Amino acid sequence: MRTAQLIVDVTHVDIWFNMASSAWSERIVQLLRRMNNFYSAGSSRFSCFRFEIDGSQVGWIPPHVASLLTPYTDVFLPPQKGAVSLCPSLDCYEKRSEAVNDVVEALRHESSLICLRGWRDERYSVKPRFCDAPLMWMERAATSLFGVKRYGVHINGYTVNGSGEISMWLARRSITKQTYPGLLDNMAAGGLAADVGIKHTLIKECAEEACIPADIAAKACPVSTVSYTYEDEEGVFPESQFVFDLELPLDFVPSVGDGEVQDFYLLPIEKVKGLLATDDFKPNSAMVILDFLIRHSLIEPDTEPYYQEFVTGLHQTL
Amino acid sequence: MRTAQLIVDVTHVDIWFNMASSAWSERIVQLLRRMNNFYSAGSSRFSCFRFEIDGSQVGWIPPHVASLLTPYTDVFLPPQKGAVSLCPSLDCYEKRSEAVNDVVEALRHESSLICLRGWRDERYSVKPRFCDAPLMWMERAATSLFGVKRYGVHINGYTVNGSGEISMWLARRSITKQTYPGLLDNMAAGGLAADVGIKHTLIKECAEEACIPADIAAKACPVSTVSYTYEDEEGVFPESQFVFDLELPLDFVPSVGDGEVQDFYLLPIEKVKGLLATDDFKPNSAMVILDFLIRHSLIEPDTEPYYQEFVTGLHQTL
Repeated sequence: MRTAQLIVDVTHVDIWFNMASSAWSERIVQLLRRMNNFYSAGSSRFSCFRFEIDGSQVGWIPPHVASLLTPYTDVFLPPQKGAVSLCPSLDCYEKRSEAVNDVVEALRHESSLICLRGWRDERYSVKPRFCDAPLMWMERAATSLFGVKRYGVHINGYTVNGSGEISMWLARRSITKQTYPGLLDNMAAGGLAADVGIKHTLIKECAEEACIPADIAAKACPVSTVSYTYEDEEGVFPESQFVFDLELPLDFVPSVGDGEVQDFYLLPIEKVKGLLATDDFKPNSAMVILDFLIRHSLIEPDTEPYYQEFVTGLHQTL
Repeated sequence: MRTAQLIVDVTHVDIWFNMASSAWSERIVQLLRRMNNFYSAGSSRFSCFRFEIDGSQVGWIPPHVASLLTPYTDVFLPPQKGAVSLCPSLDCYEKRSEAVNDVVEALRHESSLICLRGWRDERYSVKPRFCDAPLMWMERAATSLFGVKRYGVHINGYTVNGSGEISMWLARRSITKQTYPGLLDNMAAGGLAADVGIKHTLIKECAEEACIPADIAAKACPVSTVSYTYEDEEGVFPESQFVFDLELPLDFVPSVGDGEVQDFYLLPIEKVKGLLATDDFKPNSAMVILDFLIRHSLIEPDTEPYYQEFVTGLHQTL
């Protein structure tokens, strides 16, 4: 029996759904600009210090954070040539990780470092590029202070009916989530912790957040990455999300798992498209779905003047 | 009757097909780096002049070209603050186009300007972004002298058999082509001339190059863009290709049309993947097919260490 519910509580979607497509396009351009604001002419990038380990850049440290690191002379060298480096005596993965973690633990008392209030006890890898060996781990909540690149997995859960019409499963985030409470999101998503595989993370998040059995989640297809760097009062966020498409059986219904999600909705893809232009969507998830719309030919380059800007805006890196 | 031939004359593909995948990955990284060499630290970008019209940048002019423009004081203002601008008296599309074209015609005698030997009598639009109104047109062969962005259309023609196995149609370019003679290419592709639509260009190129009937070509699905900027001795090439996938009937065989192609091959996709790492492929077409491999889940992020670098390398813009 089909129990999937069509969305009913997003009354303002019709505003966007029915608006001139040019207004929708402008909102999407603004979204991409906001999520890439670290590249803009007015960004703090030009005053940030490069965070370097062994001569390789692994992040960006805002000036106010660099000042707070100055007392820890046994961990960080004084800023030099625009870079803050770890002391050379920290010459291996474990030593670096523990020394920096001690500093970050000490900084939890700093009221200005809002991000540390969201301490997660999750270790993220710190490395110059995804393909490089990790040089240390860092507590997830601290990565934005050092502008360390974070990786994650996002899953587009969707259905195709007999007429070829696509609908997409969206999650509404729990109002108790630390970040973006109550906003619309991909069906499942999660950050990539140190030493954990991409597909493994996908299957775990599908199970935990949406009670999707492993044999169904395993059918998800890798299709893209979405990359961006934004900055806000909590720091610098260079991120790349590994994107998977998962076509679900028409009678499948995800259900709330670990409490990170309060509800799931199955929506016609045109409704989802309209919602992307509202403030009701977690911004990086809106980008992942924009990528879906492009790959599935739901946006046409002859009628969408920003088509090429959309695609390049989804894949920015420094 | 199935008359499609499997490739037989590309003997060295098995070398790459059988090589360690890490060697393939490194070759692809090199391809992407070469096609984006204008962004590299050692590029001429830092000595190029911005080409501006009415205060908006529309290209990059290498210093040796800027010197050649100096005598034409009724068309170009002297370089100022790193920019070469058109004279304000050229205050409309037609005036600008004709004045610059007169200069470019005069420069055809300069033996150093290799690219002008390939005069095409094709008008390309000059505009800050794709979504902007064109500010002038320019002869296609001259665009690299001014680093004016060029747009095109590439079509991935492919088949899926009953077992779900994908094969792709490749073209071998005629040895008389001005650019990349004799190399492997997408089944059909072409540049976007001024005032011509994207889908219209696609259908035209499919008909002209591969004798694909319009009703079949019209089924091509827009799926992506591929963007890059390279420089060589002929100038600066900022380009974006609109990418379409066209699934063809199993019994369909393209045939040589206007003589731009000497032959077509239908190849299992794994063979195509191997060929991308050889020098036998037109480089931007290899990028378009790399994008296909990623979108069709033929590359896995858990086993391809450069997965994210591949995706971002396909979508660079300034």
